[in-house]
Amino acid sequence: MTLESGAGASHAPALRAHHRIGSFEPELGGNLQDVTLAYETWGELNDAADNAVLLVHALTGDSHAAGRPSEGYKRGGWWDPMVGPGLPLDIDKYFVVCSNVLGGCSGSTGPASTQPGTRRPYAMRFPVVTIRDMVRAQRRLLDALGVRRLALVAGGSIGGQQALEWAVEFPAFVEKAVPVAATGALGPQGVGMSEIGRRAIMADPDWRDGDYYGTGRRPDEGLAIARMAGMMTYQSAAGQWERFGRRPAGRPALHPELGGRFEIESYLHYQGRELTDRFDANSYLYLSRAMDLHDVSSGYESEAEAYSRIEAEVLFVGITSDWLFPAAEVRDAAEKARQAGANASYAEIDTLSGHDAFLKDWKELTEAVEPFLTKKAES
Amino acid sequence: MTLESGAGASHAPALRAHHRIGSFEPELGGNLQDVTLAYETWGELNDAADNAVLLVHALTGDSHAAGRPSEGYKRGGWWDPMVGPGLPLDIDKYFVVCSNVLGGCSGSTGPASTQPGTRRPYAMRFPVVTIRDMVRAQRRLLDALGVRRLALVAGGSIGGQQALEWAVEFPAFVEKAVPVAATGALGPQGVGMSEIGRRAIMADPDWRDGDYYGTGRRPDEGLAIARMAGMMTYQSAAGQWERFGRRPAGRPALHPELGGRFEIESYLHYQGRELTDRFDANSYLYLSRAMDLHDVSSGYESEAEAYSRIEAEVLFVGITSDWLFPAAEVRDAAEKARQAGANASYAEIDTLSGHDAFLKDWKELTEAVEPFLTKKAES
Repeated sequence: MTLESGAGASHAPALRAHHRIGSFEPELGGNLQDVTLAYETWGELNDAADNAVLLVHALTGDSHAAGRPSEGYKRGGWWDPMVGPGLPLDIDKYFVVCSNVLGGCSGSTGPASTQPGTRRPYAMRFPVVTIRDMVRAQRRLLDALGVRRLALVAGGSIGGQQALEWAVEFPAFVEKAVPVAATGALGPQGVGMSEIGRRAIMADPDWRDGDYYGTGRRPDEGLAIARMAGMMTYQSAAGQWERFGRRPAGRPALHPELGGRFEIESYLHYQGRELTDRFDANSYLYLSRAMDLHDVSSGYESEAEAYSRIEAEVLFVGITSDWLFPAAEVRDAAEKARQAGANASYAEIDTLSGHDAFLKDWKELTEAVEPFLTKKAES
Repeated sequence: MTLESGAGASHAPALRAHHRIGSFEPELGGNLQDVTLAYETWGELNDAADNAVLLVHALTGDSHAAGRPSEGYKRGGWWDPMVGPGLPLDIDKYFVVCSNVLGGCSGSTGPASTQPGTRRPYAMRFPVVTIRDMVRAQRRLLDALGVRRLALVAGGSIGGQQALEWAVEFPAFVEKAVPVAATGALGPQGVGMSEIGRRAIMADPDWRDGDYYGTGRRPDEGLAIARMAGMMTYQSAAGQWERFGRRPAGRPALHPELGGRFEIESYLHYQGRELTDRFDANSYLYLSRAMDLHDVSSGYESEAEAYSRIEAEVLFVGITSDWLFPAAEVRDAAEKARQAGANASYAEIDTLSGHDAFLKDWKELTEAVEPFLTKKAES
């Protein structure tokens, strides 16, 4: 492990490091040599090594789950209001770990990493990685950290897919799992929107079949469009009416011939630009594809067989206005898991925030999750 | 008027022609010289000149509202099951007219037309046109055809926006209006998806700021992505689960590195390619923008004042699974029109087909519309 920095937010001191998990065989083929995972931790592992909490980040997130706003993280950690003394994930009690996923671009091995034995990045020579691969890589990290058992694994969206997969893939290792805004398999509407984004990246002439590294150019325009499509799936129609309505934007139009810009357009343009400054387009292709490909039943006879493996208590959290992973589908996944014999329950966050509620509706999220966590503390 | 062809489908002989409506001043500025509208008609205008029905096509539609499948129209007319002897729009009774909209690319003046006084197409020098402009241009055509009053104006989506605008803009001219899957103003989710499509077209290096005509290249890739984004808004999540689920496609993947293609992706790719063979990318920019910009209250004190102008009987038709113009918003528009004193009613099509139901759910559409039309015949 390489220590990178011992500094974190004042209320939640983080340890940030990299760990080399060695070679890795992705389930769909290919081979990765010398894989590294970037991670951060908060709190301390107890003597029994069973107070660890693994937080799993969203599509364009990273290992910085907690921390006040700082220079590198203007918005602070992505679950900061949930992590810290006196908060649902009390770091006086838990050893909280968050790692950048395999295939990512924030310190972990991904398409932008140099391919061993060559001097060039993997780019599209990176093998397809799946949600299960991400979970297996995280397991190696936790083993190296001495974690014996996860008190909790939690995350939203692609992080929720991983949280659920954790409970299926490593049943004995997980005490509790909270997949938020996620199911066992993404629906065709989500896959379609995902493909629109990938297609936009690949259509960008600066993408160059993925080999844009070192050219001085990047497929920013394509990645921005992908992000715009993504943002649409993270919000709800009602939420957008409330937040943007049909208000005009203050800025001039992209093409004046097409009339003034609406605020929703200006917002999407901003979100698009913002992502290109911090995210690698090829990683976006691989991670969005992992979301599409994931099917919890893969390798099992059925979804029921997969769910029947679960030993953890699982709390599925649905979001009423989510259209990427609609609440009805999350509830249905919880019901299927329960019918398969898993100790599964379901909680719902009633909000207009859409899919993104797991990154902003702190009060509702806390109310949904805390009773489930507290129950543990008392058991 | 220039006769182009007298041949139509056997059960609904069409007259296809072009009419020059002269110069035209778009409401948002600019000036168009020598504007032409392409149109088709079925049936005959009666002596009172009050049996005319104007059908208004959808975003990528054209004047071919009726007709059996033919070489030029493999799927036949876009409302063929509604138009013909014994059908809701009986051409033994009605004189049915459908014109390609102003700004379109199927015979009417649009960005691909040669700008008078130059030898080049307008491209992005074409002025922004609005739903109201489209309606005003259609009015000139109907006047030239000798139509004294519209027995009915009907259409879905952007066609529905026009049908409603007809009732507001020319109150005395319209007896009945049926806007389907449309409201007085598109919501931010629709505008956002629309902008993603435009952005994809403009990001295509072959777009060349709109001046791609005559270069031997077209922004097909961008237009295909725009179409893919459009298709997502025309269907429903439940409908896509039923139709595509997570089934794999038969064809090989676009990028094998990213795994096998899902059927929903293959379908979207097909729809994207299909549009590039029949539609002009710049027209797509202008027409989609007209949808975004339209606000029935524009130029009036309020939406209520606009609706209070209506003298026609208006039937708003909502589609339960529509997410471009959600049924609740269509119902709300009907209610607002009624409160403003208009003779407005609301019917709902219960379907999984999404927005596109107005182009495929013939039984449900007939059941929703026919009582409203019959009432007229008996009055």
